[in-house]
Parts: sequence; structure tokens; C-alpha cells
Amino acid sequence: MCRWAAWSGAPKYLEELICDPEHSLIHQSRNAFSCKTQVNADGFGMAWYDNRREPCVYKDVRPAWADANLIQLAHHIHSPLFLAHIRASTGTATNHDNCHPFTHGRWSFMHNGQVGGYDVLRKRIDSMIPDHLYQHRTGGTDSEALFLIALGYGLDHDPTGAMARAVKDIEQVSRDAGILPHMRFAACWSDGKHLFAARYASDSRAPSLYYRTFLDGTSVVSEPLDEARDVWKQVAPSSLVMIADGYVEEQPFLTRQAEAA
Amino acid sequence: MCRWAAWSGAPKYLEELICDPEHSLIHQSRNAFSCKTQVNADGFGMAWYDNRREPCVYKDVRPAWADANLIQLAHHIHSPLFLAHIRASTGTATNHDNCHPFTHGRWSFMHNGQVGGYDVLRKRIDSMIPDHLYQHRTGGTDSEALFLIALGYGLDHDPTGAMARAVKDIEQVSRDAGILPHMRFAACWSDGKHLFAARYASDSRAPSLYYRTFLDGTSVVSEPLDEARDVWKQVAPSSLVMIADGYVEEQPFLTRQAEAA
Amino acid sequence: MCRWAAWSGAPKYLEELICDPEHSLIHQSRNAFSCKTQVNADGFGMAWYDNRREPCVYKDVRPAWADANLIQLAHHIHSPLFLAHIRASTGTATNHDNCHPFTHGRWSFMHNGQVGGYDVLRKRIDSMIPDHLYQHRTGGTDSEALFLIALGYGLDHDPTGAMARAVKDIEQVSRDAGILPHMRFAACWSDGKHLFAARYASDSRAPSLYYRTFLDGTSVVSEPLDEARDVWKQVAPSSLVMIADGYVEEQPFLTRQAEAA
Amino acid sequence: MCRWAAWSGAPKYLEELICDPEHSLIHQSRNAFSCKTQVNADGFGMAWYDNRREPCVYKDVRPAWADANLIQLAHHIHSPLFLAHIRASTGTATNHDNCHPFTHGRWSFMHNGQVGGYDVLRKRIDSMIPDHLYQHRTGGTDSEALFLIALGYGLDHDPTGAMARAVKDIEQVSRDAGILPHMRFAACWSDGKHLFAARYASDSRAPSLYYRTFLDGTSVVSEPLDEARDVWKQVAPSSLVMIADGYVEEQPFLTRQAEAA
Repeated sequence: MCRWAAWSGAPKYLEELICDPEHSLIHQSRNAFSCKTQVNADGFGMAWYDNRREPCVYKDVRPAWADANLIQLAHHIHSPLFLAHIRASTGTATNHDNCHPFTHGRWSFMHNGQVGGYDVLRKRIDSMIPDHLYQHRTGGTDSEALFLIALGYGLDHDPTGAMARAVKDIEQVSRDAGILPHMRFAACWSDGKHLFAARYASDSRAPSLYYRTFLDGTSVVSEPLDEARDVWKQVAPSSLVMIADGYVEEQPFLTRQAEAA
Repeated sequence: MCRWAAWSGAPKYLEELICDPEHSLIHQSRNAFSCKTQVNADGFGMAWYDNRREPCVYKDVRPAWADANLIQLAHHIHSPLFLAHIRASTGTATNHDNCHPFTHGRWSFMHNGQVGGYDVLRKRIDSMIPDHLYQHRTGGTDSEALFLIALGYGLDHDPTGAMARAVKDIEQVSRDAGILPHMRFAACWSDGKHLFAARYASDSRAPSLYYRTFLDGTSVVSEPLDEARDVWKQVAPSSLVMIADGYVEEQPFLTRQAEAA
Repeated sequence: MCRWAAWSGAPKYLEELICDPEHSLIHQSRNAFSCKTQVNADGFGMAWYDNRREPCVYKDVRPAWADANLIQLAHHIHSPLFLAHIRASTGTATNHDNCHPFTHGRWSFMHNGQVGGYDVLRKRIDSMIPDHLYQHRTGGTDSEALFLIALGYGLDHDPTGAMARAVKDIEQVSRDAGILPHMRFAACWSDGKHLFAARYASDSRAPSLYYRTFLDGTSVVSEPLDEARDVWKQVAPSSLVMIADGYVEEQPFLTRQAEAA
Repeated sequence: MCRWAAWSGAPKYLEELICDPEHSLIHQSRNAFSCKTQVNADGFGMAWYDNRREPCVYKDVRPAWADANLIQLAHHIHSPLFLAHIRASTGTATNHDNCHPFTHGRWSFMHNGQVGGYDVLRKRIDSMIPDHLYQHRTGGTDSEALFLIALGYGLDHDPTGAMARAVKDIEQVSRDAGILPHMRFAACWSDGKHLFAARYASDSRAPSLYYRTFLDGTSVVSEPLDEARDVWKQVAPSSLVMIADGYVEEQPFLTRQAEAA
């Protein structure tokens, strides 16, 4: 599985999330608790917001712990809102353009999960990307396609509804093809002011999602960054959290469909 | 412009084409005669045939001359039929999956040229890739799409006709959109036994294509590998050469359409 | 710890050692049995002998399992004698030039182990590299230095004695500085005709070393490539195996010094 | 030849030097005016100062124009003092650790030039690196060695004298060996508050060095960033410029020795 972490609050050095904690993203890339035999080393990426409208993005296929540039950047760059992701491929190639987060304009998006049968459904799913956004598809992941489809559905105007609709419609493609699991989704997206994270699956195995509030902001993660697990709140399946202006708001996000008889 | 070179004949070390000649591919990557201000350093790739059915492929985004692995491989590997390509991007990203040659089964393909308006026509062109081949599209280039479309049209049964049809149909998409130049094509493809190379454009500027016959085989190139230009035969526009069993056969390849009034 | 594997015998596809076995090198790079929390993903390298005198070398910092070029090369290249190594850095940077195997002329060398206090002793150890070989030092590892020092001591004339002397002399530098462990060494080296592997430590923790004889050749490894552990012979500490012409010969290799009172 | 550029003054986005000008560093990496047949694409690096004491460093072997991360970082990061360098190797390998600028503590250093006979003199020159700095030598370039030697001579206390002494002593090594040219040096170094640049050669061919003063700061470059060549002041051979607090001060830097009879 992929692993990711995001921060919204007072400016922090990126390393405070990515490198420093006991079970930081870098530590998780070597030792994800949930996957004894797997490591998350099929690419790393981070996006952070500064005084420009769109975020700055850094991605590389090198394992995070061996990336001297990443260590430098995380040590020097601070931001009030940033996303970081380590990838464990579910099939598509390991290359720069398949690393998360994906960005477009002011939006950034990262994802842990999968679409059942994606490799054979890719053409159908790609065709759901609106014409004007198709040229921005640089890789071949389901995550990038999902993001572009959600953008097309109006992420600008309805950041939660557009994403929910994209997830639902892609799940339907998988459902129509009958390939399980149809959809597993623990994702995070932002416009630089609001941070959204949602957890959903078409079955009972929605990928993990936690958050923790501090005095100066909120961390949203796939896996807690330290052993203080009681302080990390688990986001329930079919739920979304929105963080803005220091507030954390929980909302429902999609209802799991009953399996067709 | 991209630059490429291919060999069919007695086994040769790859370096004899890629590194050694006065104006080898590596030399061209630094000093392409046709482009004083441009260098071809957006990725390198080579595919060679051995005792296996499908070719071995090596690609990297590093500039060819700075790639220690490439120098080693070219020095040690010999093959009776191989393709090598240095890329100068016409827009799409520089990454491993956008390097030529592209391969599928026993087929390999490399291309120098462009499709007019590709960035806005990409969705239409991608939709022409047959369903069963879509999952093999790993990058975002027009070249890879063209190859997969030609495969879908039956490259196995009609290696020249299927390619011609793919070129023609993609040209039509560009023609319909009215973006010039519709098609420029100097490409090379092989099934490990036959080597095909064709030169075509919808306008008067078909990318260059030459070949030279030696006692022990034939070289097909974008640009002559040495100054002995009289010995290098230029392939005429709308022509194809097929090399097999030591024979070089020239054939017509597509007729340039008159521009619509 | 690093992990490595070598073959000497009838020609084999490199993948038969690197990719295919149950616990192949690639599998070990994700799940080394000896290191539950560690992965060996600080670079990969392989060297194989063919009809040329010196071996062909391929190295990359990408994790082995995510390297499309490696998978291709291992599938297509076959050799009667080859070495492969996955690195877990003990301090020095992850870059192309710090990957094993190191080569010079017909010799190749790879190593699992460490020199106590190397980071502060590096200048002293570098000064032991003979003048005429110093320009061939491209990285900063203790392994590369050890190899060049052994070459300088006459690897050509006395492949086991020269290596033993290099190990001993470098151990002495660490011993003089009083930094433990002075020397841990499980290495493999070859001139293309003979394959040498030795296991030694200045303390009781010599890195693991096994070999297994097949009808058509011999595998020498850090860790058995499959669960058939009874068939894998462990090389005792302070021992060396030499494989040539189908024969495996065991010899003593250095005697562990008693610690100074 | 390498090409570099530095800025000291009001904060600027890095792209204003690296990407934007008519003849920016990126443009120079493809089309250096001084080298018609050469491109500077053996690695790129930049170091910028922010609120931390030591600079942030980013390096990569990818050609600058094809590096998506570089384009992003240059667009988002601003700094009052930064250095950027594109490398054209004079022999040593193209890898991350051989890219400039080199840094240590608050110091950064980049260089265009060469040491005559470096490849055979490398051991002697490496031995001049003080013991306590030797472990920081990560690559194999003459530039990195020169920097570490200057640091050892007291760059902290005498930033110009220590560098001059290092240049002089290394030149002497080359002079003793009789390999021409002994020393060519156009370099730039900084502690985050002062920016130094000097131009010197043991012969008549000191690499080029220019600077230009703006209302809000000073640019120091290997080659002017635009066609307004009259506004770019050439630094004379055996001269140094120091920029601090908005002032530019010129000083002598080393005197060229007469060749021994």
C-alpha cells in the first residue's frame, strides 16, 4: 500500500512530518507496520503551498531515505499546508509521472487505494477524463485519472461532491466489469486553503486514515506517525474530514453500495 | 528532432553503430548537424534481438554520453538486428516510458517526427488504441500511440500496410482538427527478422532517412554516421525500405494528400 | 547488510539467480531474512563475463524490483560466470559509483561487511591505494578501496594472498584506531575464470556466506536463494572457496587475531 | 566548460537567473556561446540561503532543461543569495556527488576550470585535504578537493586568502608534474552573507567571469545572461570581486607565475 501524510496549520518544516517522527513517512517507507513483507519504495512525492497560487511539487523514483535532495528540501522548506506520499505500486510503472501528489492549478491530490481491474479498464476510465484536461495526464495511474475526472466534475465549485462523484463513477466501471475489489480509497486533496481527506471502499476494507489535532494545526495520515495511537483519531469508512482555518469538520462521504444479488 | 539508427546483418557490437562512427548516435546527441541550437538529450533507448523471440530493451533519461551503463552494454552486447534512438522531446515529458524504441511481443518501433496538434488530440488518438493493447501504453507520446494502433491494425500480418494505415488515420485526426503539420514520420520497426523503415510527411518536410549497405549488412539511420555521404542512400519521401536476409527492397509508402482547398 | 549472489558453471540467464528463486536477490532486496526492519535498496549492480576479457557491468541506484532495465537485462543476458549485489549502505552515499561489483581489467569484486571507523579512517585507507590505481577510485566506499588495495598487492599473481593481505592491513588501520568492529568481510571476486569467495571477521560475527553445487555449476551467496537450507553449505569463518572448472576447493583465509590485552 | 551564475541582493525567485533570461543557465546548458560543439549537460546543481545557517542544496544528473523538479523549485523558491551551476565534465564521472555547488557548514562553492593532470595527481591532491574534512569528500572532482583544501586553510577566517592559497598550492602540484595547463579557475563561493568570485589561470586562458549590478543586487556569471554585453563587466584575470551589503569590491587575486625556464 502507499502511505501518505499531510499538514495544515502553522508553517512547519516539511521534515517535521516526513523525516522526524518516530514512524515518519521515511520510516514507513522502510517499515510500514501494516505490511511486513512490503516496502513503500516505488517513488516519493511532495507538494507544498507557499505565496504562489499553485503548489510546488517535488517527485522522484529514488527511495525516500536515499534521496539527498529530499532530505535537504525537507530540512529547509516550510509551509502551512503540504502533502507527502510514498508509493507502493499496484501495477503501473515506477516513474516520475506516476508519483503522487498530482497537481493541477491550485489543486493537489494523493491517494492510497486501488480500482479493481484497472489494467483492463484503463481505456474506459481514461475516456472519462474531460477533453480539456486530457493533455495533463502524464502518467498511467488510476489515481491520476481519478483526480482529473474529479477536476472535470467541478472540484473548484464542489470539492467534496465532485470527488465523491468521481469515486462513485469509477467504482461503477469496475462494478460493471465485475472485478473485485471495485474501489478502495483513502485520499487527500487541497486547494491550498482547505485540506480534504476521505476514506471509502466498496467492500469492508477501506484503507486506513487517521488525523491528529495539535495546538497549531492538524496532521492527516495513512498511518500514525508515532506510537501515541490513542491521540490519533481514526476516520470511519465513508467519511471525510475537512480542515480549514484551524477547524476540523467531519462529513459523510459516499455510502457503500450493497453488492448486487 | 530525434535521431535513430538500426542495423540488420551479421552480428555487430552495438557500439559499432551507437558509439564508434565519426558521427555516431552519441555524437549526434551532442551535435546533430541539422539542429545547431538543439541537442538530442531527452532520453536514450535501444532494443536488440537475440535468441529470445522478443527483443531486450534498455532505456534511460540520462544523456547518452553520460550513461556509464550504456557505454558498457554497447561494448559487450552484439546482435544481428538492433535499434537505437536518442530523443528530443516535441512536448511530452522526459521519462523512461517516453523513450523509444517501444516494444510489444516480437515487435519494436522507433520514430522521428510529430503529429500536428497532438497535445489537444491526444484523447482522440488514445481512443484509437485497441482495448486489448491499451494497458500496454505506459507513456504519453504520439509515437507509442502510433505503434499500438499499428499493432492493432495487424502489424503481424501486414507489417507495412498496418503501419501505413495507422499513419494515415492519425494524420486524418490532425487534418480534421486543422493543425499543421499533420504528420511527419521517419520510423523504423522490426519483428526480429525483418527491418522496416519508412519516410513520409503530409507536407514537404519529411524527416530525413538514409541507409547504407555493407558486405555484412545494412544500416538505416536518420542521419549518416560518417562523412561518406555519397555512400549513404537517401530514402525518398513516401517510400519504405525493407531489409531481410541481406536484401534491401524499396517500396512506396503512402501518398501525400493534396491539401483541401 | 548488503546481499549478493554469484554463479560459475554452465551459462545461465542472469534472472535465474537474480529474479527467479523463491528468495532471489530481488526478493531479498525487499525481505532480507536477517534484517526484519531493513531493506537492501541502496543500489544494485551486476557484472557478467562474456567473450571479452573484462566483464560487462550494470549498476543503478533504483531499487532492483523497480528497475525495468534490470528485469530486461536479466531476462536476456546469459553468462557462465556472473556476480550480482544489492546494497544496504553502511554510511557512504547512495550513488552509481558506490554500487558493487567494482571492476578493473578482468577483475570484479563485491563485498558485504564493514570496516570499523571507516568514515574517520578513510583518508588513511585511501592513501593505501597505489598511485597507478588511484584514478580508478570513482566512489567513496571502503569496499572499492579494499579492492583497489588488493589489486595493488597483486591480485593477478596471488588472488587469495593479495586479498587476504588487503583485508589484514585495513583491519590493522581500524585496530590501531581502536574502533570496533575492525573488520567484517564476506566477499566475492573473479577474473572471469575463477570465482573466489571468502568469509572473515575480526570478531565473532562474520557476515554469512553459503554455496551450493549443482550438476552444471556452483552458486555462492550471502543468503540461500531458497528454503532448501540443508543443501546450502555454510562457509566457515576464516575460510575461502575457489570455484573453477567445475571444482569447489575450500582453503583457510586469514586467522582471527586475539584482541590485544 | 561548466557554466554558473550567482545572485546577491534582494530576494529573487531562482528562476530569474536560472530559467528566465534570454541566455539563462538553462539556455546555456543547451547552447553555450563559447562552445559550439559542446553542451553543458553533465549535471546541474544549485544552493540557496534562507533563514537557516547552511544553504539548501539541490543537484541532479538529468539535463537541467529536462528536470521537472528543477523547474518547479526555481519557480517557487526565492532567496537573497544563491548559486547555480551546470556541469560539463572534464573527466570525472557524471553523478550526483560530482555536481556543484559543494557545501560545508555555511560555505558553498562552485567552479569552472581545471587542474592540469588531475587524473594522475588526484591522490596527491586528495592527501592535501585535512583529516577532519576528508570524510566529507563524496565525489572525485578536483573542484570538491579544492574546496575542502581551502576550507582546511581557513576559509572561515580568511575567505580570499585561504582560497588563493589552495589554488596556488594545487597549481604547484601540477607545475611539479609538468602537466599543462596547471590551473584554470573561475569560481564562486559564499558564506551566506558575502559572495566571492575570482578569476585566475596559470596561463593566458582564465575562464570567463562577468558581473552586473542592478538596483537591487548583483549577478555574477560565467557568461552574460543576456545580449546587453556592455552592461556586463568582465572581471580581469587575477582578480576577485566580493559582494556584500549591496557593495561590489574588486581585489587582486593571485599573480600569474612566470613559467620556469
